[in-house]
Formats: sequence, C-alpha cells, structure tokens
Amino acid sequence: MKLSPGAPGAQGAPFAPSAPSAPFAPSAPTAITDIAGLRVGHAQVPGRATGCTVLLCPPGTVGGVAQRGGAPGTRETDLLRPENTVDVVHAVLLTGGSAYGLDAAGGVMRWLEERGIGLPVGDGVRVPIVPAAVLFDLWGEDTHIRPDAATGLSACQAASNEPPAQGRVGAGAGARVGKLQGIAASMPGGVGNAALRVGGITVAALVAVNAIGDVLDAQGRVIAGARRSDGQGFVDSTAALLAGPAPGPTSDTASRASASPGAATTIGVVATDARLTKAQATQLAQLAHHGLSRAVSPITAHDGDTLFALATGGAGQAFDISTLGAMAAEVVARAIRNAVLAAQAG
Amino acid sequence: MKLSPGAPGAQGAPFAPSAPSAPFAPSAPTAITDIAGLRVGHAQVPGRATGCTVLLCPPGTVGGVAQRGGAPGTRETDLLRPENTVDVVHAVLLTGGSAYGLDAAGGVMRWLEERGIGLPVGDGVRVPIVPAAVLFDLWGEDTHIRPDAATGLSACQAASNEPPAQGRVGAGAGARVGKLQGIAASMPGGVGNAALRVGGITVAALVAVNAIGDVLDAQGRVIAGARRSDGQGFVDSTAALLAGPAPGPTSDTASRASASPGAATTIGVVATDARLTKAQATQLAQLAHHGLSRAVSPITAHDGDTLFALATGGAGQAFDISTLGAMAAEVVARAIRNAVLAAQAG
Repeated sequence: MKLSPGAPGAQGAPFAPSAPSAPFAPSAPTAITDIAGLRVGHAQVPGRATGCTVLLCPPGTVGGVAQRGGAPGTRETDLLRPENTVDVVHAVLLTGGSAYGLDAAGGVMRWLEERGIGLPVGDGVRVPIVPAAVLFDLWGEDTHIRPDAATGLSACQAASNEPPAQGRVGAGAGARVGKLQGIAASMPGGVGNAALRVGGITVAALVAVNAIGDVLDAQGRVIAGARRSDGQGFVDSTAALLAGPAPGPTSDTASRASASPGAATTIGVVATDARLTKAQATQLAQLAHHGLSRAVSPITAHDGDTLFALATGGAGQAFDISTLGAMAAEVVARAIRNAVLAAQAG
Repeated sequence: MKLSPGAPGAQGAPFAPSAPSAPFAPSAPTAITDIAGLRVGHAQVPGRATGCTVLLCPPGTVGGVAQRGGAPGTRETDLLRPENTVDVVHAVLLTGGSAYGLDAAGGVMRWLEERGIGLPVGDGVRVPIVPAAVLFDLWGEDTHIRPDAATGLSACQAASNEPPAQGRVGAGAGARVGKLQGIAASMPGGVGNAALRVGGITVAALVAVNAIGDVLDAQGRVIAGARRSDGQGFVDSTAALLAGPAPGPTSDTASRASASPGAATTIGVVATDARLTKAQATQLAQLAHHGLSRAVSPITAHDGDTLFALATGGAGQAFDISTLGAMAAEVVARAIRNAVLAAQAG
C-alpha cells in the first residue's frame, strides 16, 4: 500500500480527524508542526549521510520518555523520570552518529542559552533541558564524520513551524531499515511525521527510522526492509527468523543480527497540545511505543528504541490519556511508514 | 573528628581490612586506584573553579548505575539498565558545569577512540561507552566557563594508577556543601576516595561532593556544611529544617532550599575487582547509596545524586553481593568525608 507521506487518515485509522468540510471543524493536521509553538529543524553533516533533528518547544512544555529498546544511547533521560524534579523540556534532539552524536545536544544547549532559554538556576544562569537519543548510522567509509555541536546548532537555526521535510534528512539522513540480512540488502529509513486531531486535541509524532527489522503497513505487509538477493521484493525478516536458521552462511539471519550490536534504533517524539502532568507525559511515551511495535518487525535486542513525549498545553485542556495513547500509537506508526516511503522517494 | 583523607579503618568500620603486619595479608588499600587497571584523571578549567574527573576502566569492566536524586544530569545511563544489551563500560565521567558539562564526555570518547578502545560495532568502528553525571557549580561570575570536550580529554591525559588527588580538584573543583542557608554560608565540597579489602576483594569509591546538605562523620556530627553567621560552628541544616520555618527572611531554610533547583548533587563511582554481572553491578550501585544517606543530611529533592558501579573482575572471583554492598556503603561514606576534609585543607 503506497501512502502519501503526511496524508491524514490514509490508512483508515480509527482516530481519523474530522472531515475538513464539516462546519466549524478545524482543518485536519498533517504534520507535527500543527502543534502550536513547536518548531522542527534538520541539519545534515557534509561528507556523508548523517545528521540530526531538533524539536524546539514552546514555553512550559512538559516532557516524558519511554526508553524501551535494548541498545540505547541517551542523554538527560533520568531527569525525565516522573519522580524527578524538573518537568519542563526546552528541546529534544534526535541524532545520528551513535553515542558520538550526543555531542550535538551541546550545540542545541548553546543556541538556547544564547536566547535566554533554559531552567533558571539562580545567579542569572539558565540551563536548557535538552533530552537526546541517538541512532547508529556509522556504516561504510568516513565514519569519523558524525553530528557534533555545530550540527545541533545548525538544526536549531533551521528550525521553523513549517511541516518538516521527510525522508533522508536530519537524524534520518543515513538511517536504514531491513538490516537482518546485512546492510547490503537494507533500504533507506529516514524521518517521517504524522498528526491526528480528536476532540480539539492534536497528537503528532516525528520519528527517525533505523530499525534492524522491516517496516509494515497497517495490514502487516512489508513496505520497506530487507530485499531478496534475486530482486523479487522483500525477504520478510520476521518470517525468515521464525523459520529458523537455514544451512549456509548467507542465510543465518540470527547470527547476522547478533553481529550488529549497534546497527539499529528507531527514535522519535510524540507531541500533543493537551495539558499533561509529567507522569502522564511518561505514560503517553509508553503508549506511543505500541505504534512502533505495529509498524516495525522484528524488533531486536540491538534496537535502542526510544520515544519522548512532549505536552505543550497549548489547547488549554486535559484529555483522556487512553485516547491520547491510542492517537499516539497511530501517529507513531504512520510517521514510521511516512519516513520509509519518503526515504524511498528520494 | 578529624580524619586523615584516605586512611583506612580510621572510623572503626565493621569492615576493617586485615592488619598490614599479618602474614600473607596484602597491604591495606587506600585509594580507588588500588583496583588493578583502574586509572583516574582530574582536569580543571582555567578561569574559575570547575572541572571533571574521569575513571578509565580495564578491559571487560561491567557497569551499573543507581540514579536516585531528584535533579540529575546524566548521559548513557539507560544503556546501563540491566535489561539492556551492552554491559561493558570503558570510562565514567564525573563533571561540573551542570548539564553543560555533559559535553566533556565527548572528549573522553574521542581520547578512547583514538586508542582503539570501544564497543566494536562492525566496519572497524568502535563506540566507547562513557556514562556520565554532572553536578551544579555555576555560582558567581564567569558561569560561561564550564567543562567541555577539551576538559574531558585533559582528564584522560592526566589519568594514572596513582592514588588520585582529593579536595578541590576535578569534578569537585567548584563543589560546595551546606547550601541550605545560601551559598555564602556554604563550604568547599571536593573529591574524595576510599577503599576497603575483605576476603581478597577490594571495594573502593570516588565521589564529588556538592550536596545541599551537610556532611556528617560516622557519629552523625557535622564535619562540613552550612556555617553559622556568628562564626560559631555549624548551623546543622537538618535540625534547622526539622525545627520548622522561623520568622524572618534569613532563617527560612525551606524557601532557600526550594530556590536552589540546580545547586546540588553528589556524584560518584563505586568500583570493585570482584566479578559481577550487570544486574549485580546495578545492585551494588543501589547499595552504595546507603553510604551517601549516612554521610549527607539532609538530602533534598534538588540533589541529583547518582552513583555508578564498576566491576573489573580482576580478582577473578564472584563475591557475596550483600558483603560487597556493605563495603560499598562504607567506602562511599568515607570518600564523602575525605572529600570535604581534603577540600577544607586546601
């Protein structure tokens, strides 16, 4: 099934937005920047396919995180635990470069500090809160070229409230999916986003898709992933795994997967304009992972999958967390599909 | 009670090492570098009192963390969770500079990468695993001077297996304790370390002490903390808090504490040469916090207290985790006391 990246309701979702023609109904949201005040910027690193994506938050945005994958690279996630003191987030960074890419958060902090944005900590000092997660894209040559503080700064400078570019940009510039048969059989991953509105509340997601597994459509069909060596479509990595190891070195998918300790990870942000507590934002991030489970298969111990949640409160109201969670799962799945379709398109 | 920094058994501890004169008994350990293969380096930033401390691990060192305080600043702690895939740690960074200081980990990663040290992730690429935690020392002037990647690199270059300097160095260069009455009444915190050997196993700790509260000796007496404005010793911050707010702006300790959202944090490492699993290392970090609870009071919601655990396996044997935990609590308490006593001395 071919989707137009960003097209709302294209998958017959149970949480389709109101039809744009209905009286008084707002226009259907199409991008994460439909959340008022949220700005998104991509930056790529010259010389090879890698980069980072920054989400700049409006004042008072509350954050949470659900770090679920087995091989994460993160920064400032302890701070987001609901029992901890600070509940505001000034920006979130998604980046390539594996753990090296965490340095890009320093550039984001510098950009925010120069604008007087950050947690006031006395003596006029402000400390911007910038949680971050990385994906692994250090394949091939020139693996010393990785996002750094300058890349983070560039992403901030590029940030706007326009619908963000999708595909091979920002944190998704060098992302790949379908790596269980090796990198040669894989396909571009990329960045995608999606949004839904229900009852006056918008929930949206932006993800960078670098899974070891394949990406599935809403009917469970592989739309991006490991390609067959005979050129006849996809391997179906999950089916291959469940069939058990076949004889011969080229089909031992289990050993290929275990040989890729860093070669993975889907990272993203789910954002809403509902007003949430920090505990609810954490719950929203947890519920959002169900969308990842639906759109990616298999998910391996080497995927460091991490989803942040941001609640701007811009809609001025609280909202049923289970509905928000169902919306979050849906937009995460759509954003993942949009990412790989846009990455294939160019 | 005045302790000689690093003097073993000076507090009549239940886990006193064997007497040095006993036949075949090894000499009593005095520093965290008595753990074979562990190297420690400090670096300070020119221009103001701040810096970082790096612990470089021998190959195969297993890591854990217990992030307990309410206002943490951390990097790569998700990776250390026992259910996650990677269990080796190549270095741990403790740093000043609040969240800005996390950038120093990038310098540590670069130094390790240049030496071919890191997790092999295919294509000849290695990703050094460098968990990090920060403390807040951005008081006074020139708060833009903070540890960065160059500081992390300098700490690596300075690392050795000699007993590390204690007091106002490295991550403790700008640390303060006893801040509940305001920074003017506080005292230097600093870095300290301590070690114990039981049954052929060494457990040691290195901490940077920047608590809001006071530091207590083994008898519960304040040995460093908030000073009385009349020059007559210590306020006893816990007693002042428990007495409730007194009239007048200068004695409202509760509001002073809440006005200091970032002004705190004790961070450290407990290390052993026992052979531990990642789950056991996590447990060791958790048990080590009991030493912090004994040596610091009060502990506030604004302390982001974080302790890492490192198990080098150099002693070639496993060991009862409860004994290791009791040793860890004891060396953490001693290291905290050594830190403030050394910081007062110079």
